[in-house]
Amino acid sequence: MTQRSGSSVAEGDSPSSSLGPDLARSALAGDRRAVARLLTLVENGTEEGAAALTELYPHTGGAHVIGFTGSPGAGKSTLLNCVAQAFRHRGNTLAVVAVDPTSPFSGGSVLGDRLRMRDLVTDSGVFIRSMASRGHPGGLAHATRDVVSVLDAVGTGFIFVETVGAGQAQVDIARLAHTVVLVEAPGMGDEVQALKAGLLEIADIIVVNKGDRPEVQQTVQAIRTVIAGSGSVAGGWEIPILRTSATERTGIEALVEAILAHRQHMQATDLWSARQARQAYADIEGWLRRYFDEWVAQCMDTRDYDALAEAVVRRACDPATAAHSLLTRFTEGLCSKLKG
Amino acid sequence: MTQRSGSSVAEGDSPSSSLGPDLARSALAGDRRAVARLLTLVENGTEEGAAALTELYPHTGGAHVIGFTGSPGAGKSTLLNCVAQAFRHRGNTLAVVAVDPTSPFSGGSVLGDRLRMRDLVTDSGVFIRSMASRGHPGGLAHATRDVVSVLDAVGTGFIFVETVGAGQAQVDIARLAHTVVLVEAPGMGDEVQALKAGLLEIADIIVVNKGDRPEVQQTVQAIRTVIAGSGSVAGGWEIPILRTSATERTGIEALVEAILAHRQHMQATDLWSARQARQAYADIEGWLRRYFDEWVAQCMDTRDYDALAEAVVRRACDPATAAHSLLTRFTEGLCSKLKG
Repeated sequence: MTQRSGSSVAEGDSPSSSLGPDLARSALAGDRRAVARLLTLVENGTEEGAAALTELYPHTGGAHVIGFTGSPGAGKSTLLNCVAQAFRHRGNTLAVVAVDPTSPFSGGSVLGDRLRMRDLVTDSGVFIRSMASRGHPGGLAHATRDVVSVLDAVGTGFIFVETVGAGQAQVDIARLAHTVVLVEAPGMGDEVQALKAGLLEIADIIVVNKGDRPEVQQTVQAIRTVIAGSGSVAGGWEIPILRTSATERTGIEALVEAILAHRQHMQATDLWSARQARQAYADIEGWLRRYFDEWVAQCMDTRDYDALAEAVVRRACDPATAAHSLLTRFTEGLCSKLKG
Repeated sequence: MTQRSGSSVAEGDSPSSSLGPDLARSALAGDRRAVARLLTLVENGTEEGAAALTELYPHTGGAHVIGFTGSPGAGKSTLLNCVAQAFRHRGNTLAVVAVDPTSPFSGGSVLGDRLRMRDLVTDSGVFIRSMASRGHPGGLAHATRDVVSVLDAVGTGFIFVETVGAGQAQVDIARLAHTVVLVEAPGMGDEVQALKAGLLEIADIIVVNKGDRPEVQQTVQAIRTVIAGSGSVAGGWEIPILRTSATERTGIEALVEAILAHRQHMQATDLWSARQARQAYADIEGWLRRYFDEWVAQCMDTRDYDALAEAVVRRACDPATAAHSLLTRFTEGLCSKLKG
């Protein structure tokens, strides 16, 4: 697809093969191996993957994307395992996309954890995908978004995305998911601080896991106080604070019901379409950044760059001025190509 | 400074004030309050900050930048506190730049930790700066680099930068520091995995802190095995593996000596200038990205953006094609401005 690459604006390169669209059609027809290959293509930021996404995009928009976020140690993965099984028992197709590299779904944990996930792993109605591998050319958030789009297009009902609840990952999951589940453990005083700092802004459902611990009431109360203080209610939805114990499998059904209630609430109000719109903006922005990143790479792939870096080391020029000089030359080149 | 802003390529905007250069001159003359104000200006990505950096840049290049990295829980901050005091006792001026938001230097920890840092905080030969505040328009890495440049220009001998040793932060610290100290705690089996995955590539000195624990020998041995297996020796430097106990203040002098030995090694070989060059490249790239980010913002600040997002929500257009369309219109606008 010529219109896919940022560099094509300047260079007008042509598509290499029809592999992407072919795989897309097989995946839409129900071929699981085609789905797996597509996921790899989009994760690696290939042209074929991008071409496949164009083919797949009209089929997206049906999935309910649920972010599972929270600190390591809160038992997030084990809880997600229980919740995913409960959704599966209700007959839904689903996927788990693990962005957190320490997640057992990423293979990043001990064997015991992975064994507990065996039921899911061997189930053909479930897709498990780890984003822990290195090297996402357009960035991890962009790759995750593309993986979710592929899974959405092939008819996955519920897509769970597991992330670490901190920094940029927190912003990214809020822009990707319809429902954000924040998993906390009792007795994490610092965590309640973190809630204040921003996690609360993105949570639709808060879970205090390890609910059999003595400090649980105190933690629930602390969260309640923070919520009451912030007065933040997203579109009339009152954020539930649930207690679960993943190891004893208690509270799971209530969490499933809360997720479904949030979905119903979104669909009954204009929240669902508001979140679809937020996703669209984030997706376009992701592609824009990727195109501009290609431009940055082109700027740096010049002799000027080496000469300027050498001048910067000598302190004959400062880095901002050097970068500006590269940018000016790049712009001139871009415009003369556009004219020619 | 007109040549500062990415948008200026298209618009030719003019400087707003001489605040930045004025503060830069006061800071170079030894005014501590001017330094503090400058740090805020560059952290906030202001035009004045950028103008000040141009003024300051010829005075940089003298500082030894030391990255302190490792997982939370390894006792990194407490150890850094001891090391900084040891450098201070030798009569050096120094700064601590805390990028890790959980660091006591960031105020992100319990009072007891902060009390231990009291000696440093009240010392006029020491600058402590937390990067934990939100909103770095050009990104955290860029803001950190600019803060280090200001501290370097005003004659700070040693600048310690404390980061979490994971993901992008790991790449960033390697591109910023002359010497990277990796702090581990004994008995962290997963951490040795992390070492394999990439931390080793950036470490110049490895410290096993909490060296009074029984598992320490095992951890040291595991690290040794990984190092031997990788065969990575950066410029003839043999990575020392040291044991410290920050709480009992043992091993601190050996760590200080190792840092100074690494400095001597870098200056005796061409490693110091190689790292200066790496810093220059990273710094130019940081500015390039920032200019392009301004372009992204300009692309998104158009009516076209809303119309395209609406089409994406309707699935009438896919996000990549929408982004490409924005990019094309932006490029055309840029070139017609450049001509006009």
